[in-house]
Amino acid sequence: MAFKVGLLGFGTVGTGTAAILRDRDRRNPLLQDIEIGRVGVKSLDKPRAIALDPDLLTTDLESIVTDPDIDIVVELIGGLEPARSLILKAIAAGKHVVTANKAVIARYGDELYAAANKAGVYILLEASVGGGIPIIKPLKESLGANRISQITGIVNGTTNYILTQMTEEGADFDAVLTEAQQLGYAEADPTADVDGLDAADKIAILASLAFGGRIDREAIYCEGIRQVSAEDISYAEKLGFTIKLLAIAQKTENRDNTLQVRVHPTLLPNAHPLASINGVYNAVLVEGEPIGQVMFFGPGAGEGPTASAVVSDILAIAGILKSAGKNTALNPLLSCSHQDYSAIAPMEEVVTRFYARFLCGDRPGVIGHLGTCFGKHEVSLESVVQIGFQDKLAEIVVVTHDVQEKNFRQALEEVRSFSALDSISIASVLRVF
Amino acid sequence: MAFKVGLLGFGTVGTGTAAILRDRDRRNPLLQDIEIGRVGVKSLDKPRAIALDPDLLTTDLESIVTDPDIDIVVELIGGLEPARSLILKAIAAGKHVVTANKAVIARYGDELYAAANKAGVYILLEASVGGGIPIIKPLKESLGANRISQITGIVNGTTNYILTQMTEEGADFDAVLTEAQQLGYAEADPTADVDGLDAADKIAILASLAFGGRIDREAIYCEGIRQVSAEDISYAEKLGFTIKLLAIAQKTENRDNTLQVRVHPTLLPNAHPLASINGVYNAVLVEGEPIGQVMFFGPGAGEGPTASAVVSDILAIAGILKSAGKNTALNPLLSCSHQDYSAIAPMEEVVTRFYARFLCGDRPGVIGHLGTCFGKHEVSLESVVQIGFQDKLAEIVVVTHDVQEKNFRQALEEVRSFSALDSISIASVLRVF
Repeated sequence: MAFKVGLLGFGTVGTGTAAILRDRDRRNPLLQDIEIGRVGVKSLDKPRAIALDPDLLTTDLESIVTDPDIDIVVELIGGLEPARSLILKAIAAGKHVVTANKAVIARYGDELYAAANKAGVYILLEASVGGGIPIIKPLKESLGANRISQITGIVNGTTNYILTQMTEEGADFDAVLTEAQQLGYAEADPTADVDGLDAADKIAILASLAFGGRIDREAIYCEGIRQVSAEDISYAEKLGFTIKLLAIAQKTENRDNTLQVRVHPTLLPNAHPLASINGVYNAVLVEGEPIGQVMFFGPGAGEGPTASAVVSDILAIAGILKSAGKNTALNPLLSCSHQDYSAIAPMEEVVTRFYARFLCGDRPGVIGHLGTCFGKHEVSLESVVQIGFQDKLAEIVVVTHDVQEKNFRQALEEVRSFSALDSISIASVLRVF
Repeated sequence: MAFKVGLLGFGTVGTGTAAILRDRDRRNPLLQDIEIGRVGVKSLDKPRAIALDPDLLTTDLESIVTDPDIDIVVELIGGLEPARSLILKAIAAGKHVVTANKAVIARYGDELYAAANKAGVYILLEASVGGGIPIIKPLKESLGANRISQITGIVNGTTNYILTQMTEEGADFDAVLTEAQQLGYAEADPTADVDGLDAADKIAILASLAFGGRIDREAIYCEGIRQVSAEDISYAEKLGFTIKLLAIAQKTENRDNTLQVRVHPTLLPNAHPLASINGVYNAVLVEGEPIGQVMFFGPGAGEGPTASAVVSDILAIAGILKSAGKNTALNPLLSCSHQDYSAIAPMEEVVTRFYARFLCGDRPGVIGHLGTCFGKHEVSLESVVQIGFQDKLAEIVVVTHDVQEKNFRQALEEVRSFSALDSISIASVLRVF
């Protein structure tokens, strides 16, 4: 029995996927049953790293998703359209779908999974989060009996590379971004990565799987790393923290049906398992009952790792088709059974610690004034340190205890209004894990 | 549709498993379809942490594995017999099997999987390695397209706890073992853990899955941690290493069909991802192409984590039964398709670095003599350090470059014969990663 795969897109990940599928010398015997049926490309003339039979190539992607010979459509073109429409057409034509496209799933998951369930086909998406790291399948299947309380991930390799370089070289964001672009670790337009949008797509997917409800992508708080400065990284280090862009999804304490889902740069204690994840690597920490903590670590992107995840999804579908045939019900562990949206708490209600850096005219009583502003809004301080001077202004770094975001913001307003009189300016504000 | 589970054994893991299965408030809807049908125990009168309907309990374990109402037999009694016979009888009666028993799989996997394939049933074993960490399923499924080159694991929590305590407290093995026994982290008879036998069972299972061949358990080199001293841990630290009990399976370079499979205490460079895995935690590092490196980290034992893995296997079988019915072929991704034994290289052929500590009469030329002995057997040295004195003897620590184990052993023989004349004694020998 042979299963035919139609690839939509033949860039880096498509090339890696084809390389694995055409290699007949791998240990998994199921691979022998999988054939590349069609490959949809933008241009037929472009030179390719892998020489495919020219008859396989087409620029007509719609003809692939409706081709009666194709069993599994692998969507690797990325972005929202035409990816969404092609996936819907593939589903309507009874094809199973494998995708690496976090954006389309995070935004149209509701529509896509409803269509897939109706048609009795799978949409598998291991490659959409964490590149080659097995995380989707373990979360759905291996940890399926757990009550997950929190997922914390470093899920964007570009920003983790930039923050690691800034930490190791003491360099500024702009300089490291330029370097990352030259090395191919960052896109020419880095917005999706450095502003946290890619991480938000991924945590939307993980939260949906972990907590069993759809996630409104627009409700996710999303703050990128552009404003993280070399100074803040250096001060964080002195205080025993590493700055990482974290994607966090957790249950709200005492409000069981409300989630917090957010992406922001975070001061992470050096002893935290995620603090030592450097460079382009990704890691996802899952906490739940009765499992406790498990962490998955590996390459978050790249041709080979992402292709490994794509092919694992193709294998999963081929394994089912081979053992159970085509006309069976969907396996509830591999399909998507939830339909309701999870309530997401507004950011003002989130309780977290904060780090704030202030520049102050060096006059007596400044620290006292800061303390008064915070105290008025029930912000209790863990430490206040005058850490140095910048342009004759004293730099004061404050780390709070757990506080509601709303109260902290109000305290900052108080500092701001006060600062008009007394020359205190707020240089930076970051959250602390 | 309800699936009935028969539990063999109702100790810690059995109790944890029952606690999850009886909890009707978990997110996974498939859990609603699973019922505890029978529970096999040693004594009906023992007080239990979970009150089960007394009608479910029986001391007649054979009656469970042949009960026509039972769909899935969960073997949690451990050890070789009667576990092996009960599993075989369950298979013969057409039951799927879930087991946490590494010993029986490592030794009788051949017989058990042959029987299961013939009967068309699954034997799933997520809980047998790494407790709650998803590692078996990711290795079989998510990484199924990869050519694995090496698996390196900290897979025994007891020895990792002991080594961590020895490192943190500078304490000796015997003292920490006693403490670990009092805390319940080590058994009254600690042999299986501290002599590396449990780790060897586990690496046999992982190697079999990763390299697609059966593993002769008796061919695994196995060295425990009894001989690791507080001195060696301290000297290793000074040289930038942490001592861990590693279970290693790797392809032999230039001999593609031969594996090295071994368990021994190892000096691991502090920057290695496994060096920071402390206490009772486990972690498994998988290396392959095209994935690169992925690591799985979490609780390697314990009621809740192990039960999480057991229930995930029960869910996997229930998911298949629910979607595809009972009369389908085995899914090749979840069953065991290999039948041949992998060739395992003898330990003398293994190439590794070594650490050795010598006690020498403090006379001129001793280091020169050591160097001569090593040089004669092509052992090239990375460092030779006189690190201190003990009872008026100089302590010299040697770290070699990569060397064939055979050559290193011959060099040690040379030192031994030489030492009769010149009072050099070999205080310890450990491998270096």
